[in-house]
Amino acid sequence: MNDEYFMKQALREAGKAFDMGEVPVGSVILMNEKIIARGYNQIEKLNDSTAHAEILALTSAFNFLGSKYLPEATIYITVEPCLMCAGALYWSKIGRIVYGADDEKNGCLSHLPCQPDLRDNWPFHPKTELQKGILKEECSELIKSFFRNKR
Amino acid sequence: MNDEYFMKQALREAGKAFDMGEVPVGSVILMNEKIIARGYNQIEKLNDSTAHAEILALTSAFNFLGSKYLPEATIYITVEPCLMCAGALYWSKIGRIVYGADDEKNGCLSHLPCQPDLRDNWPFHPKTELQKGILKEECSELIKSFFRNKR
Repeated sequence: MNDEYFMKQALREAGKAFDMGEVPVGSVILMNEKIIARGYNQIEKLNDSTAHAEILALTSAFNFLGSKYLPEATIYITVEPCLMCAGALYWSKIGRIVYGADDEKNGCLSHLPCQPDLRDNWPFHPKTELQKGILKEECSELIKSFFRNKR
Repeated sequence: MNDEYFMKQALREAGKAFDMGEVPVGSVILMNEKIIARGYNQIEKLNDSTAHAEILALTSAFNFLGSKYLPEATIYITVEPCLMCAGALYWSKIGRIVYGADDEKNGCLSHLPCQPDLRDNWPFHPKTELQKGILKEECSELIKSFFRNKR
C-alpha cells in the first residue's frame, strides 16, 4: 500500500461529500499503516463554514488516540489545505501531509499575498514533511465536475 | 456597553482557562448587543491542539444561530488569532474582529515570513472589520503571569 492507495481512500471520502451536495474534499489519517480517522467536507450538513474534511479527520484522530499531537501520522487530503486547515495541521504537529490537487483560490500555498521564504516550511510545522500532486487529476476532476453540475 | 466591556467578558473566559491550567485566551461573540457564544482555550482538557478559544466560540455561535455565516456578529478575543483561527474567522465571514494583545510568536499578522499587502485585508475576509489593542495590557498580563507561574 502506497500514497496512491491512501489517496484513493481520501477520494472515497470526497465522494461521500459529493453525494451529499457538499464541495467534494476528503481526507484520511494514517498511522502504522492503518487508517485511524476519516473526514469529508460537511459545511452544509453541520451548518458550519469551518467543517472542512481535514478538521473533522483531525478531531477524530485526536479522540481516537487520546493525544493532541500526531507526529507519527500521515494525512491524505484530496485538495491543498486552506489557511485554517494548514494552521490546524501545524498545531497537530502531524508527521506528513500528502495532498492531491492544488487550490488556486483558497490553498494555503497557492493563494498568498506575498511569497514566503519556504525554507522554514511555513505555514506548516518545521518537522512536517509535505508531498503534493498524488492523484492530482482525479482529485481536481471531482471538484470540477461538482461545480459543473451546480451550474 | 462598548468594546472594553465586551473585552472584559472575553477576559473572564480567559480567566476560566487560567484556572484550569490552560493558556489563558478567551473569546465572546456578540450579535445585536447580546453575547451569543463564549469560548476559552481547552487544549489540555479536550486533548485537542486545535481547541482554541475562538474555534470553540465560533462552533457555538454557528450552532446557536443555525447559520454557517456570521456577518452581523463581532468577536472579541483577548489575544491576536493564530493562522488557523484567522482562517476560521475568514470562513465565518464575521462582521468585526476585536482583539487585545498581539502575539509575536503565533499571531496571524505578527508572525509572518513576509509582509503581505494588507490592502486586501488578508488573512481576513474582505468585508471583516479589524480592531486591535483593546485592553491590551490586561490581556497580555494574564498570559505573562500564566507563564511566570509555570516556571
